[in-house]
Amino acid sequence: MELLDKLNWRYAAKAMNGEKVSQEKIDNIIEAARLAPTSSGLQPFEILVVTNQEIKEQIRPVSWNQSMITDCSHLLVFAAWDTYTEDRINTAFDLVNEVRGFENEGWEAYRQKLLSFYPKQDAEINFNHAAKQAYIAFSASIIAAAYEGVDTTPIEGFEPEAVDKILGLREKGLRSCVMLPVGYRDTENDWLVNLKKVRKSTKDLVTVIE
Amino acid sequence: MELLDKLNWRYAAKAMNGEKVSQEKIDNIIEAARLAPTSSGLQPFEILVVTNQEIKEQIRPVSWNQSMITDCSHLLVFAAWDTYTEDRINTAFDLVNEVRGFENEGWEAYRQKLLSFYPKQDAEINFNHAAKQAYIAFSASIIAAAYEGVDTTPIEGFEPEAVDKILGLREKGLRSCVMLPVGYRDTENDWLVNLKKVRKSTKDLVTVIE
Repeated sequence: MELLDKLNWRYAAKAMNGEKVSQEKIDNIIEAARLAPTSSGLQPFEILVVTNQEIKEQIRPVSWNQSMITDCSHLLVFAAWDTYTEDRINTAFDLVNEVRGFENEGWEAYRQKLLSFYPKQDAEINFNHAAKQAYIAFSASIIAAAYEGVDTTPIEGFEPEAVDKILGLREKGLRSCVMLPVGYRDTENDWLVNLKKVRKSTKDLVTVIE
Repeated sequence: MELLDKLNWRYAAKAMNGEKVSQEKIDNIIEAARLAPTSSGLQPFEILVVTNQEIKEQIRPVSWNQSMITDCSHLLVFAAWDTYTEDRINTAFDLVNEVRGFENEGWEAYRQKLLSFYPKQDAEINFNHAAKQAYIAFSASIIAAAYEGVDTTPIEGFEPEAVDKILGLREKGLRSCVMLPVGYRDTENDWLVNLKKVRKSTKDLVTVIE
């Protein structure tokens, strides 16, 4: 399958060469995230796309000084909702009614169910749940980039509070949860580029119950 | 981009018709999950592939009675490690050394760093982190299925403890975190199949910092 060829080509680039990725490709990488499924369709996250070099330079030291932060073309920061609020839930449900052009009893009952549940739940639990949805979209962007022949580096190794501060996320009710430098591998300076991809065997990953 | 066409075609099937998905396609869907990136390459999850109809029928009532559980072809259950242990970390690092055929000082230092950190951390925090990695793979399987023209339904709505019991996961140090019925949409009985896909606009999803 062609997609698997692309996923085998993909790796977490440890050095990037600064080359710009075309706007069309970036748009496709973001569109894949936008189309990703999320719990109840709430899409409880936003994506910050950083191309400003000064901001990237501020983020690098709070990200284990990883060079891809500054040497990428576009730095995508996935920021999840800090909690689920009534407003946020209503906005998502209202959008569904607006796009589909009708109200549905079952859907409205489901809205009430979520309204009675999420906003009362501990914010940290809600954030964790929202972050998982962001990871689904994050994965979609990684795959779409590989499909386009564009490199990425999935990065969890950063100080979220510091990144939140640099990007002004907390004031917007957001918390950074994962980052994705997007760009092109620096084949001469990347220690990982020529090493074999390592994965546990299908036998160790999968149990079939038939 | 062809991949985006597939992602637009994809939706969360709310009814499936029982048709079997070929082994080749299932293999590709699982391979996409196997190739997914995970934190430190630990792949801290396993995938249970349930085709046994009796087991599916046991899982359905603890999954909001969703019909896709029994009417899918293959039910994929993503189960994350209940915590990070020294053994699990060492197994992953040893595999890297074995596949690449050498030991590396930096890599061994990184092993020690993880060994000094993860096993001491609260199991619930570790599980949550492992679950996020499973979500990355889960998303890869959803996308690979769509690429193959195969339907899926991302399902968080189930009782994890009950599913863990049915599948004997806790004894293996695993906890179910998300499920994916894989099969074919039942176009006559699915209320969702002809409704418009709803997503927030790119403007509402993305902030560009340039």
